[in-house]
This record gives sequence, C-alpha cells and structure tokens, in this order.
Amino acid sequence: MSVAIVSIGTELTRGELVNTNAAWLSDRLVELGFEPAEHCSVPDNRRSIIDALSRLAASFHVVLCTGGLGPTTDDLTAACAAELIGRPLVLHEPSVEVIRRKLERAGRTMGDSNVKQAQIPEHAEVLPNSAGIAPGFMIPVGRARIIFMPGVPAEMRAIFEDHVVAIVRPLIEPKTAQRRLCTYGWPESVVGDKLAGIEASMPGITIGYRAHVPEVEVKVHAQGRDLAHAQTLCERATLEVKARLLEVLYGDDDETYPAVVGRVLRTRGLQLAIAESCTGGLLGHLLTTEAGASEFLLADVVCYANSAKTILCGVDEDILRAHGAASSEVAIAMAEGIRRRCGADISLGVTGVAGPTGGTDTKPIGTVFFAVSTTHGTTIDRQFFSGDRQRIQRLASFHGLRLVRERIDPRMRSTASIPDVSLRRDAAAGD
Amino acid sequence: MSVAIVSIGTELTRGELVNTNAAWLSDRLVELGFEPAEHCSVPDNRRSIIDALSRLAASFHVVLCTGGLGPTTDDLTAACAAELIGRPLVLHEPSVEVIRRKLERAGRTMGDSNVKQAQIPEHAEVLPNSAGIAPGFMIPVGRARIIFMPGVPAEMRAIFEDHVVAIVRPLIEPKTAQRRLCTYGWPESVVGDKLAGIEASMPGITIGYRAHVPEVEVKVHAQGRDLAHAQTLCERATLEVKARLLEVLYGDDDETYPAVVGRVLRTRGLQLAIAESCTGGLLGHLLTTEAGASEFLLADVVCYANSAKTILCGVDEDILRAHGAASSEVAIAMAEGIRRRCGADISLGVTGVAGPTGGTDTKPIGTVFFAVSTTHGTTIDRQFFSGDRQRIQRLASFHGLRLVRERIDPRMRSTASIPDVSLRRDAAAGD
Repeated sequence: MSVAIVSIGTELTRGELVNTNAAWLSDRLVELGFEPAEHCSVPDNRRSIIDALSRLAASFHVVLCTGGLGPTTDDLTAACAAELIGRPLVLHEPSVEVIRRKLERAGRTMGDSNVKQAQIPEHAEVLPNSAGIAPGFMIPVGRARIIFMPGVPAEMRAIFEDHVVAIVRPLIEPKTAQRRLCTYGWPESVVGDKLAGIEASMPGITIGYRAHVPEVEVKVHAQGRDLAHAQTLCERATLEVKARLLEVLYGDDDETYPAVVGRVLRTRGLQLAIAESCTGGLLGHLLTTEAGASEFLLADVVCYANSAKTILCGVDEDILRAHGAASSEVAIAMAEGIRRRCGADISLGVTGVAGPTGGTDTKPIGTVFFAVSTTHGTTIDRQFFSGDRQRIQRLASFHGLRLVRERIDPRMRSTASIPDVSLRRDAAAGD
Repeated sequence: MSVAIVSIGTELTRGELVNTNAAWLSDRLVELGFEPAEHCSVPDNRRSIIDALSRLAASFHVVLCTGGLGPTTDDLTAACAAELIGRPLVLHEPSVEVIRRKLERAGRTMGDSNVKQAQIPEHAEVLPNSAGIAPGFMIPVGRARIIFMPGVPAEMRAIFEDHVVAIVRPLIEPKTAQRRLCTYGWPESVVGDKLAGIEASMPGITIGYRAHVPEVEVKVHAQGRDLAHAQTLCERATLEVKARLLEVLYGDDDETYPAVVGRVLRTRGLQLAIAESCTGGLLGHLLTTEAGASEFLLADVVCYANSAKTILCGVDEDILRAHGAASSEVAIAMAEGIRRRCGADISLGVTGVAGPTGGTDTKPIGTVFFAVSTTHGTTIDRQFFSGDRQRIQRLASFHGLRLVRERIDPRMRSTASIPDVSLRRDAAAGD
C-alpha cells in the first residue's frame, strides 16, 4: 500500500505559501501506518495537474490531492479530474443545497462561483465538507484511487478525518507504532548524537526530530511484523531513548515546556510574579498562551525603562546607577521587589542585552541576568546566549522558566546546558 | 527557462518537517524572474531520489535539489548524483581542508562522517558552503543542470545567494517585477474580493496573498515583454491595488504592523505604557520583538490577577467588585493608572475574556475591553473576537495597537472592521 500527496496551487510553487498541508497529511498517514512515498506540488495549470495526477496514479495505490477546488477561475482541479477519467463535470445537487444553506446561515447569497464548487466529475464519490463549502470527492484511475480535498487547511483536515481515514485504514494492516517525546536543554544535534546507534541496533526503529528552538521533539517510529510487534519494538526503543535523554526530557505528548512549568506551579498551589526587561513580554506570553494561567500567574511586569523598574518593581535608583540595568543586582532587586509588592510565593527577574545594539566588552549582546526569589532567599544566574534578538529573547525566556522549575523542585535540576551557551552560576544572595 | 525543486528527506515525506526550503527557493526564483514548475519531495531512498532527479532533468532546464548531503548513513544524495551521471564519488581535497579548518575553529576534530561530506561526483562543479560543512555541487544531466545544496536552511540560503544566483541569472532575460504590500484590518477573503478583476483587466499581472492573521500580505507580480515593461505594468497595478486597499494598507515592505506602531510612537517622541490582562504579554512581546522598543515603551504590566491590577496599576478594588475584571471601567482604570504611575504620554489598557472558559451571556468568550488614555482624556472600545484563545489574544493585541495608532494620528482612523467582529464603539470617558 503506497500513498503520494499532490498539492495544487501556484501560490505554493511560487513560494507564497509554505506547504503545511502535505506535512500534516503525511504526519497523519504515518500515524495510520503508511509511509508516504512522494510529495508533489504543481501550479494552477491544466497540463501540470493532469501530468502529475496520471503519473502518480500509475505508481501508487492512493493519491491524496489538495487545492484548486475554490470558486475562482484559476481553480481547475475538478475539471482536470474529469478530463483524467474521460467524464463530464456534473452538478451535484445535494452539494448545491448544502452550499446554499451554509451561505444563508452566514448571511450571504449563493453566486455562480459558489455553484461551480458543487461541480464534480460524473460518478465520483462525494466526500462532504463539514468545515466549509467545497465538497471533496474520490475517483478511480486505473488501479489507484485519487482523493480530492480543498486546500484550506481546516477543510482538508475535516474531510480527511471525516472520510479519508475510513477509506484508507482498511487498505493496510497496521504494522507501525509511534511515540513522541519532548526535550528542552540540548540542541537538536546533541539530541541526535545521544541517540546515535539506536536505529542501527534496533531493526524497525527510526527516530525523527523536530526542533522548535529551544525545544526538540523526538519521534520514535517502529515498523513491525504486525501491530503487537511494532508496539513492543516501540516501547523497547522508547525506554532506551528516555534513558539517554533523561536530563532534558520534560514530557511525552504535545505539551510545551512553558505549559509544563505552569502545570507544576498550579499543582503546587504557588503564585508566580515576573519582572522582565530584555525578554519584553515573551515570558508572560509563553505562560499565558495556554488557558489557566490566572491560577498561578499573579503579574508580569515588562519594565523596559529604568523608571518603570523603579516605579513598578521598587528597584533602587542607586542600584541602577551603580550597576547598570543589565546586572545581577538589578535582576535581584526586580525579583525581590515584584515578589513583595504582589505577595507572590516565587518571582523571577530577568534583565540583559538582547541586541542588536547595547553590548559592551564585559556585557556582550546575549548577556542575561536572572534572579529567582522566594521567602527563603534569592538565587541568581548569568547566561551568555548567542544568536539574533528573537533567539536571545526566546532562549532567555525558556532559561528563566527552567530556573523557576528547578527552584520549585530541586530534583529537576539538570546538568544540561543551553545551546551555544557557556553556563556560569554566580553567588546567591539572601533575602 | 524552466526550474523545478527537489527536496530529499524522509523527515519531509513523513511530515516531521514542513518544507520551508522549497517555499524559500521559489520565492527567490520568482524574484529573479523564474516561474517554478514543480516541487517534489522524496524520502531518503536511492530509487526514489534517482527517479525524481532523472524525471525532472528530462523535463526542465534547471533542477534545484536540497537535502541528503549530511554526514549520516541515510544521506544518499551525492551517491545518487554520481550514479545518475555514471561517475564515481571522489574526495574533493580542498573541501576536506575547509571542513577540517571549520571544525577545528569550533573546537571539534574531523571524523569519517565529516570526510564523507567532501565526497562529490567526479567532475562536478563544487559550490563552497560559507555557512556550514557540506559543499554544494552542480552536475549536467542531459540538457539540464542539477544543483545540489544541503537541507539546513541557512546553508542552502548561503549557497543559493553565493553561487546559484550567478548561475541561473544569465539563463533568463528578466521580464518580471514584483511589489509587496502589507495590510491589516480585513480578512484575506475580503482583501481578495476588493482586488477582484485586477488580474483579468491587466494582462501580465498576478496577485498573491499570504496571511499571518490578522496581517495579510499582498504581492503584485508582473510579467512583461521585457524588464522595463514589467516594471511599468507592476507600478500601474500597484497604484490600483493601493487605491483599493487604502483603508487597511500600512506599509510596503516586510515591516510588521506592531513595528509600524512602534515607529510612529518613536518618531513622535511619545512614551507608551501598557496594562494588559487577557492578552497575557503578547502586546509587549509584539512591540519588543524588533529592537528599539526602549525608546517608546516605558512599561507593560501583565496584570493577570485582580490584586495585580490594584497593586501595580492602582485599579480601585470597588471598581473590580462592581463591574468585574472584564469591563470598560476596569480597562479605563488600568490605562489611567499605568499612565499616571509611569508618567507616560499615552497608555493602553486591555481586559477581557480570552477563553476557553470564563464567558457569560453578556460577556461571551472573545469580549475584550480597551481603553487608550492621554492627558487629553481616555477613549474606550469594546470588541467581540471569534476563534480560539491564541486567535483572540492575537486579534485583541493588534486591535489595541490600532487604537493607539489612531489616537496618535486620527487621520489613521479607518473604517475597516476586524475579521469576524461586530464593531461597537462605546462612550468616551474624560480624564
């Protein structure tokens, strides 16, 4: 059983859109046990579309095709599909009705361009679209089946889940299993080095990596004789992977590192306050992207100006003058000030030089000072991050969250070092 | 002159990585005047790689190929290229030296796997890699040339700019021109509707769209008889596009909307303070992503807890009790409080219900209250945004920035409405 994916659209071949649809479909196909054989993107051009579809239908059992089912004149996919099987396009009346009702509900009236979206090749099997207007459809071409879906991601996903899964699942006996593990602390290359040799020593296992700097996701994929065998292989390999990544592993599903830190704070009933400068609100943003942040985040003060550090966090002007805004002393004063003002259990102060200007010999761009404060005292840390402004802000935000997590749960303290960073711990200051 | 792009890597066909390389290459090729004919991704499999390369070399003049030049055993591209032209792989000594020096500089020693990266097909033209280890190379296959680059985006881009541009530019006489315009305020479909008919009435013009909700980028592409003709066509179409999008146009390069608002504040010498609740730091993050925010952003207080609204912004507890945290009254108190405390020229207060819980009949999820305050008074606004938590946070942040911009420069006030939003302006409150 082989599958290929065709994406239709000049916006793709011109690079105006990144092809996330093909990646999403492949990811789901792998989960279902398939090994996608090819992705092909062609422009909105009759010849290109027909050539691609007929070539792939001759080589593979199933071809998943997205795009070109829209209302405008450059949407040619349905006409090409009809030409491919030598059938006319016919109006699918039930789809016309569905489209009319959907548009009415949205307060719009149906135009000719919408009716065009209900035209499908004669005898094609219609795949209703629960997330939009244009229905999908399936046609046989030789021994292959070609399944057409709209290019709008939400609509493609709806048709895939509602219909395509049921069509393709019976075509293979599942022989694969997968596990996803999340790490933070090592760059992708180091994670890869740590797992070197596993694939060679465990036949049937492949390991995939996906980096969202500084998080690295590891996917363990097992191909077995049957499903039970694949699952056993996968569990065995996952144990080995976990053992090698213990220091940097933080979860085994889609949870982000900031969400994990939030969860730990919430389950311990701790209230956090943040005073951040060079990270510019990213810390607060990362913690509040997931719902429920109100349970553990009292406040986050982005005190960009020195006056704001003084007014909002109570940082002494003398300290700012004596040590400069990017200093351990100011980080301590920010953390202690915001904790006391808000009555927080734990607080984080972050100040540094995110660049691209403002660096000095002793405090080059990328220098960031951290302070974590509780009633038991304040600990400080200094890091040197490399990269551009966005990268430094992101690495610093994650590092700040890590320091909070380690302070709550010292067992969590890892020896992992951040990508491209020479780690130096400075002295701790008491409360 | 026709070009196709091949991307090699099982991580692509399995959907572990989204193929941003193909989009980047296409975007650059279009800028250079090419019209990419196909993208094809195949797994790390000898047969698949050779089939794809020979098929595309038979149809197109230039094939750009990325990936599979790494140090590990699953990197097969160089061997496949050699097989394709019936030549052995040979060690390219100058590249070995370059690799040795680069690794030494990084404090590493060269291993066998690194040496493998200097093996290229005999007689291939080497394209040195200024951003990494593996060199690129070019081979002739029939009438076509295939150019190989590493899959690491930074290395691919370096080789493309350093060598490939000079190889492909002479192959065509440029006959195309492009302009990029940035909008915020209408959904992509409305932008498309507003521009309907331009392509039909102006032969040679195509219009591309790229949405980063809520920003929509519009690309005007002109194909002419020669370069001067294309440029004239492009300018004429751009004038028409600008006229139709006047209300929502905010720039004509890569500048983001938050960066534009920051620039306006900076050029007017105004200092902004923000008190944000439901947007959770995203406002501060958007404004500080670009450098220079310290010149206009005094402070951003993410006052998630009611106590933080009182302690940090001076919001009266009675107001919170009487109206609830998500209310116009609290937005006003937040904006006025943070402005006075920080001595800001202008301030923004944002509070609302980002979801997924916390909605009520009168304040459903997506209800957000805004207040913009200066010494001349405080204006308020209420919006209902639809979508999930991340979307509501993002739409609310952009709307807050728009209100700040409109307050600074009332000529900027647009009649544009936000996607999926019924706009209602409430009464204004004095200072």
